[in-house]
Amino acid sequence: MLSRTFSRAASQRNVALILSGCGVYDGSEATEAVSALIHLSESKASVTCYAPDKDQMHVINHTNGEEMEEKRNVLVESARIARGAVEPLASLDSSSYDALIVPGGFGAAKNLSSFATQGPEMEVDADLSRVLDEFKGASKPIGLCCIAPTIAAKQFGGIGVKLTVGLSTGDEAVWPHAGAAGACEAMGAIHTDVDIDGVVVDLENKIVSSPAYMKNAAPHEVHFSVGKMVKEVMGLI
Amino acid sequence: MLSRTFSRAASQRNVALILSGCGVYDGSEATEAVSALIHLSESKASVTCYAPDKDQMHVINHTNGEEMEEKRNVLVESARIARGAVEPLASLDSSSYDALIVPGGFGAAKNLSSFATQGPEMEVDADLSRVLDEFKGASKPIGLCCIAPTIAAKQFGGIGVKLTVGLSTGDEAVWPHAGAAGACEAMGAIHTDVDIDGVVVDLENKIVSSPAYMKNAAPHEVHFSVGKMVKEVMGLI
Repeated sequence: MLSRTFSRAASQRNVALILSGCGVYDGSEATEAVSALIHLSESKASVTCYAPDKDQMHVINHTNGEEMEEKRNVLVESARIARGAVEPLASLDSSSYDALIVPGGFGAAKNLSSFATQGPEMEVDADLSRVLDEFKGASKPIGLCCIAPTIAAKQFGGIGVKLTVGLSTGDEAVWPHAGAAGACEAMGAIHTDVDIDGVVVDLENKIVSSPAYMKNAAPHEVHFSVGKMVKEVMGLI
Repeated sequence: MLSRTFSRAASQRNVALILSGCGVYDGSEATEAVSALIHLSESKASVTCYAPDKDQMHVINHTNGEEMEEKRNVLVESARIARGAVEPLASLDSSSYDALIVPGGFGAAKNLSSFATQGPEMEVDADLSRVLDEFKGASKPIGLCCIAPTIAAKQFGGIGVKLTVGLSTGDEAVWPHAGAAGACEAMGAIHTDVDIDGVVVDLENKIVSSPAYMKNAAPHEVHFSVGKMVKEVMGLI
């Protein structure tokens, strides 16, 4: 029942997908994570999901945005998206994979990093930081969407990584987190404004990013935004 | 932040989507629910999500399949898929909608009905039972996928509803729940075997069904299976 890997039989490329829980306000954004799985399996990639085996920063009641008085484990909740098939991030052996994908949701800013509370002073989860350096060092592509590119901004800001988190200014009802673009620049990244149909490819560093739910967009627009990121990542392998 | 409806601005048709939690083993299957949202928004439908405001039958640790010692509310967990935008099923006014969609996952068999524990002797959640009768009575289409068509088998078995839950026999590794087809027939439904690329349309009763994750398929195959169901439902409005 609990197979550990998606699409192994059709495997041509091995991709590691990093989850950060299950649900936009304290974990991986469900539409983004599922869209990544869909687009990767359509690309005949063999996907293995990973997540940190640690408590979430907190648990949010998604009906009202309030904190709940309980603890949940990031890996255990991530398994709700991955149908059980998720491995501890600490065990990720980069040499087994051709590319890395990190969907968004506040989990990326709360459980994979501390961006939600510290902004440009954020820290990146130690296991993820190691993994990012290993993929980058081996010239393997890394794709991120929504708020997750802030992690690349922190990790690779020192070398002026090019990326996007959507628009840097705009109607707050449409782009509620536009300030993240300035935070990326404060960490040394070169930010390019793109709308929901755009994608930024840093060819030199093989970092790909797209806005997804940084825009208050429709589900199919987010699906296509994630798809553009995945397609560029697969093309860079 | 917590808008209550997807894609209202582009609305042409109003569709109610019934969620049953968040995660395949005790709630809505994430890929199926998200795929329904994606295909419906691509169809320019205005979607409102509903879920029962009651405790889940139980909480399953999705990494190992074991029951966890805690309670979770079906509506609150469903909001993790719906980005907060979910209403109590009891409040669903059928006159406001053109079609009804019910994705699968064990939540359909544990929280929307008792199929998981009672098989053909199952009961359907009272609010859902009312809603199904209202849509059927108004000749509005109802789409279900994966294990959810068992609910239509119970509700409309007396009139010989035509539907599918995939294959009725097959390799257990590929079709782990093939016995559900026989259970549907035991409840009076007329079951048609179809593979992951198939869909069954009961034109007379406007009931549409497709297998989705009844087959241990790849995520993009499930996405397309849900899409076929949604497309037929939209065409029947």
